[in-house]
Amino acid sequence: MSLLLSRRDLEFLLYDWLKIDGLTARPRYAEHSRETFTAALALCETLATDHFAPHNRLGDENEPVFENGRARIIPEVKAATDLFSEAGLIAAGADFDLGGMQLPQTIVQAGLAWFQAANVGTAAYPFLTIAAANLLIAHGSPAQIDRYVRPMMTGRFFGTMCLTEPQAGSSLSDVRTRAEPQPDGSWRLFGSKCYISGGEHDLSENIVHLVLARTPDAPPGVKGISLFVVPKRLVEDDGSCGARNDVALAGLIHKMGYRGVTSTILNFGEGAHRPGEKAGAIGWLVGERHRGLACMFHMMNEARVGVGLGSTALGYTGYLHALDYARTRPQGRSPVNKDPTSPQVALIEHADIRRMLLAQKSYVEGSLALNLYCGRLLDDERTAEDPADRARATLLLDMLTPIAKSWPAQWCVEANSLAIQVMGGYGYTRDYPVEQFYRDNRLNPIHEGTHGIQAIDLLGRKAVMQGGAGLRLLADVMRQTCARATHIGGEPAIFASQVESGIARMEATTARLHGLGDPERTLANAWTYLEAVGHLVVGWIWLEQRLTVGNATGDFEDGKRQAARYFFRWEMPRIDVGFDLLDSLDDTPLAMRDAWF
Amino acid sequence: MSLLLSRRDLEFLLYDWLKIDGLTARPRYAEHSRETFTAALALCETLATDHFAPHNRLGDENEPVFENGRARIIPEVKAATDLFSEAGLIAAGADFDLGGMQLPQTIVQAGLAWFQAANVGTAAYPFLTIAAANLLIAHGSPAQIDRYVRPMMTGRFFGTMCLTEPQAGSSLSDVRTRAEPQPDGSWRLFGSKCYISGGEHDLSENIVHLVLARTPDAPPGVKGISLFVVPKRLVEDDGSCGARNDVALAGLIHKMGYRGVTSTILNFGEGAHRPGEKAGAIGWLVGERHRGLACMFHMMNEARVGVGLGSTALGYTGYLHALDYARTRPQGRSPVNKDPTSPQVALIEHADIRRMLLAQKSYVEGSLALNLYCGRLLDDERTAEDPADRARATLLLDMLTPIAKSWPAQWCVEANSLAIQVMGGYGYTRDYPVEQFYRDNRLNPIHEGTHGIQAIDLLGRKAVMQGGAGLRLLADVMRQTCARATHIGGEPAIFASQVESGIARMEATTARLHGLGDPERTLANAWTYLEAVGHLVVGWIWLEQRLTVGNATGDFEDGKRQAARYFFRWEMPRIDVGFDLLDSLDDTPLAMRDAWF
Repeated sequence: MSLLLSRRDLEFLLYDWLKIDGLTARPRYAEHSRETFTAALALCETLATDHFAPHNRLGDENEPVFENGRARIIPEVKAATDLFSEAGLIAAGADFDLGGMQLPQTIVQAGLAWFQAANVGTAAYPFLTIAAANLLIAHGSPAQIDRYVRPMMTGRFFGTMCLTEPQAGSSLSDVRTRAEPQPDGSWRLFGSKCYISGGEHDLSENIVHLVLARTPDAPPGVKGISLFVVPKRLVEDDGSCGARNDVALAGLIHKMGYRGVTSTILNFGEGAHRPGEKAGAIGWLVGERHRGLACMFHMMNEARVGVGLGSTALGYTGYLHALDYARTRPQGRSPVNKDPTSPQVALIEHADIRRMLLAQKSYVEGSLALNLYCGRLLDDERTAEDPADRARATLLLDMLTPIAKSWPAQWCVEANSLAIQVMGGYGYTRDYPVEQFYRDNRLNPIHEGTHGIQAIDLLGRKAVMQGGAGLRLLADVMRQTCARATHIGGEPAIFASQVESGIARMEATTARLHGLGDPERTLANAWTYLEAVGHLVVGWIWLEQRLTVGNATGDFEDGKRQAARYFFRWEMPRIDVGFDLLDSLDDTPLAMRDAWF
Repeated sequence: MSLLLSRRDLEFLLYDWLKIDGLTARPRYAEHSRETFTAALALCETLATDHFAPHNRLGDENEPVFENGRARIIPEVKAATDLFSEAGLIAAGADFDLGGMQLPQTIVQAGLAWFQAANVGTAAYPFLTIAAANLLIAHGSPAQIDRYVRPMMTGRFFGTMCLTEPQAGSSLSDVRTRAEPQPDGSWRLFGSKCYISGGEHDLSENIVHLVLARTPDAPPGVKGISLFVVPKRLVEDDGSCGARNDVALAGLIHKMGYRGVTSTILNFGEGAHRPGEKAGAIGWLVGERHRGLACMFHMMNEARVGVGLGSTALGYTGYLHALDYARTRPQGRSPVNKDPTSPQVALIEHADIRRMLLAQKSYVEGSLALNLYCGRLLDDERTAEDPADRARATLLLDMLTPIAKSWPAQWCVEANSLAIQVMGGYGYTRDYPVEQFYRDNRLNPIHEGTHGIQAIDLLGRKAVMQGGAGLRLLADVMRQTCARATHIGGEPAIFASQVESGIARMEATTARLHGLGDPERTLANAWTYLEAVGHLVVGWIWLEQRLTVGNATGDFEDGKRQAARYFFRWEMPRIDVGFDLLDSLDDTPLAMRDAWF
C-alpha cells in the first residue's frame, strides 16, 4: 500500500462520486476515457513514488545554498523535474495544440497531489511553472505564448509568480516595483520581490518571471498594478536564450519547512550601469495595463485550490505514515488488562490512537473530496455545454475557494500534528517523515492569502457578491444533498438534519452580520465565520461521500461510514459554537487596545 | 520590555494573587522576604536574557554531534550552564544545609521559567540535574546524597532520568533493563535506554544517571521496577571521579526541535569484557527494591508541572515576539478604508490580528497562572503548618497535575502557531524565533506522559481516587471562587455562572462515565474529558485573575479583564461540546476497526 495517497480513495472520489469519466462526453475530452485518466494517475503515482519521495528528506536537510549569486540545489531535484517534464506532465491540462494532454483539471489535480504528497519542495518548481504558463495562456498575446509558454510546456523554461514585496507583505495595494515604458514597446522594471519560490535555479534553461509592477501613469492601490513577463534570460526571435536580464538573486530565505524549493529575494533593475545601456530588467506587459491584479486573480481560484490540495496531500501522507506505524508498533496494553506478562498490543488497539487516526482520516479525506469537487467545478466552468452551467460553476467555485484553500490548510496541519502524536517520541524525530510534513504544511495557512485574508474574502466579498447569489447557490446545492439523504432515511437523514441546521444558521448569521451597517464590526470575527462555514461545507462533503458508499459492504465502505460518523459526531458540533459567537456580535478582539496587551 | 516573559504579570500572579510573600511566615522560609524573592527572580531574568537567549538559535542550528562516542556541543552552552551553577540556581529550592537557597517552589518555578523562555535546550541540562537531585534527596540514602547530590548542587555533576527503552516507549511496564546483584551490595546493569536528554556531554565532571531496571527476583510489570543510581564515572570515597563506568553513548537522536540538548541512546553494560572483570554498568539501588516507579512518580507532579511550565514559557515568549512585531510592522489598511494612498497601519490595528494576540494572551497567561498555582500547592504540600492543609494540597495537586501538564502543552503550542500566523511569511522563516518556539514546544505534548496518558490518568485515576475526593475538592475550590464572584456581581458573576455550569457538567459526566460498568468504554474518550475539564479549570483560573484585578484602573488591568472576557466568550463554550460528546457515550473511535482505515 502506498504511504503517499490512497489510490482506492482517489478512484472512489473521481469515478464513484464525481463521475469524472462522464467528462469524456464533452468535446474537449472526447479523446479521453477512464483508461487514459487512470493511466495518467498511475504515471503520477509511479514518478512521485520512485523519483520525488526518495529525496524528500534529503532536500529538507540540504536546502538550496546561495553561492556567487546563484542557488546551488541537490542534483536529485533536477533529475526528478526532468522526468516530470519529459513525461509531459507540465502540459497535462494544456491544449493538444500546445503539446498538452488536455486532461480535465480534476484529473490533473489528483495527479499532482501525488507529487505534493511525495515532495512539496521539488514539486514546487514544475507546479509554479504550470501556474505561470496558465496565466500566460489566459492573458498573454499569441506571441508571448509562443515565446514563453511553449518552452515552459516541455520544461525548457520554468516560471515564477512575483507578487510580494518586503514592505508590502500581503498588502498588494502597496506594491512599489515600477515599470518604465521604452520606445520599442518593452518596459524596464525596478524593484525588489521576496518569497519568490523557484526564483533562481539551474533546473531549466530559463526562468519566466511574472511580475506585478506599477507604470508611471498608474493610479494608486490595486487598480494601478500591471503584469509583466520578465525572463531571466532574454529570448531571441528564434526561441534561443540570449543575454542575462537584469534580475538578480539578492538572497535566499530560510524557512521552517518547504525547504526543498528556493525561496528567493529578487532584485529587478539593480544591476550596474553599463556604458550606453540603461539599467532595468527588461519586461513586456501581459494583458491590459493596470489590469495586472485582475489577471492574477483570474487564476487565483485554481492557485488557492492548489494550495488546499497541497495541504491535503501532506495531511494524507502523514496520516498513512501514522497508520502504518500504529499497526506495526507494539505498545502497552488495554487499560482493562492488568496482566503485564501478556504481550503488548499494537498501538492501533488503543481507542485514543484510533481517535487520532480517525480524526486524520476525516480531515484528509474530507479535504481531498472538497478539493477535487472544486477541480470538477473548474472543469465545468471551462467545458460545461450549457453556459448557465458554466456560470453556476464559476459562482459556486468563487464561493468555495476560500474554504477549499483554508480548511485543508488548517485541519491538515492538525492532521500532521496528530500523526506526530500517534507516533510519540519517534514522530518527533527526524528519523520519521511526519515532523517534516508538519513543518512543510505550516506554510499553507500563510501563502496565497492568509487565513485572515481568506476569511475576509469569504464573509466580506463572496457571501454578498451578486446580492448573495453565491451563498444562495451553495445553500441550494447543500440542501439538494440533504434532500436525497432525508429521502433515504436512517443515518444519512440524521447527518442531513445537522447540515440543514448549519445551513440555516449560516444564512441567518450572514444576514445578521451584513445587516449591521458597521462593516468593521461585520468583518471583525470573519475568521470564526470561515471556520464555521468551513466545517459545514466539509460536513456536507462527508454526507456526499456517505451517500456515495450507501450500504455497500466492504472495509473501505465501513471506513468511509465510520469517518463520516466521526465528522458528524465529533466535528459538526463546533459549528454552533462558532455561529453563537458570531450572532452575539462579540467585540472582544475589536475592542482590545494596543496598550492593554 | 523583555520579550521572554512579563515581569509585571509574574509579580501580579505571585504577590497580588498567590500571596507568595505570605510564605515567609513559615519556618522554612523565615529568612526570606519579598525582596529576596524578587532578587532571585531578577537574577534569573538577567542570566536568562544575557546568557541563555543569545545562543538559542545557534544551539538549534548546531545540534550536538556524535564524535568518537562523545557529544560535541557548542561552547556557549557550557558558558551558560556554568553561570547558572555558579549563581547557585541548581540549589535554588534545596535546603540551606545542602548549600541551597531554600526558596519556595513557586519562586523556583517562576525563576526557571525565564530560562525556559530563553533557551529550552541549554536550560534542560541544569533542569534535569535539579530533577535528579530532588529524586535522590527524597529517596536516596544519606551517603548517596553526600556522594551525588552535593556535587550536583554546585554543578560539578549533572543528572539524567533514564526511563524509556526502545521497545517499551510509554509502557514502563515493559522496561527490560536488568540489574544483577553483586556481593559488595552494588549492582551491574545491562540494557539500553533512549530519549535520554543530557545523557552525554562535557558540561560537568560527571553525569549521574537515575535508571529504572529490573532485579532478577522482580515481579512482572511496573511493580518489579527498581531505581538505580549509575554514574558516568565512578565516584571515589573522597568525592573525586575515578574510572569510566560501563555506560556508553550509542547514538544521538535528531529531533524536530529542542535541538540544543543532547537526546541520547545509552547502552548500559555493553562494554567489552576486560580480563578478570565482569561487564555491566555499576549502580546502586535507590530506595526500596521494586519501588522504583513509586520513587519516580513521587517526583512526577513536580516534573509534569515543570513540563507544563516549559510549554507556557515557550508560548509566552512567542506571544511577546508576535506582539512586538504586530506593533511595529506596517501592513495594509482597515477593511473600511478604501484609500490606497493613506499610510499603512500597524498589523495590530487589524481585528483578526488582535484576536490572535488575545488568544495567545489568554492561553499563556492562563497557563502561567495554573502552573504557578500548582507551584503554590507544592509549597503547601511541603510546608503548610496544618497537616490537613498539606494533605489537601497533595490531593488538589494530584488532581490538577495532568491538566497543568497537558493544557499548556496543547494550547501554548497553539499560541506558538498563532504567533507564526500573526507574523505571516516572516514568522515562517528562521530569521525570526517563533518558528523555533513552535518546533521546540511540540515536544511537550509527548514527553513526561503523552496527552493520551494524562487523559487516562485524569479520568481513570485522579477523578475517582479516594472515592472521588480529589474531584470533590477541585469542585469545592472552584465553587468558592464562584461564590466570591457572584457576591461581587457584574461581569465576574456572569463568568462565575459559566464556571458553575461547567462544574456541574464535570460532576455529572464523571459519574455517568464511571457508572457504566465498562471500563474500556469509560476511558475511550478520556482525551475529550481532559480537554473539557482543562478548559473549565483554566476558566476558573481566569476568574481568579479577574477577581484579583477587580476594578483597578490601568492598562495592565484592562488587559487582564479583556483577556478574561476573551476566555469566557471564545473558549469556555468549547466545554459543552466536550461534555455533550462524553455524555452521549460516543463509541466512534472505540468501534473503529483496523481494517476499515
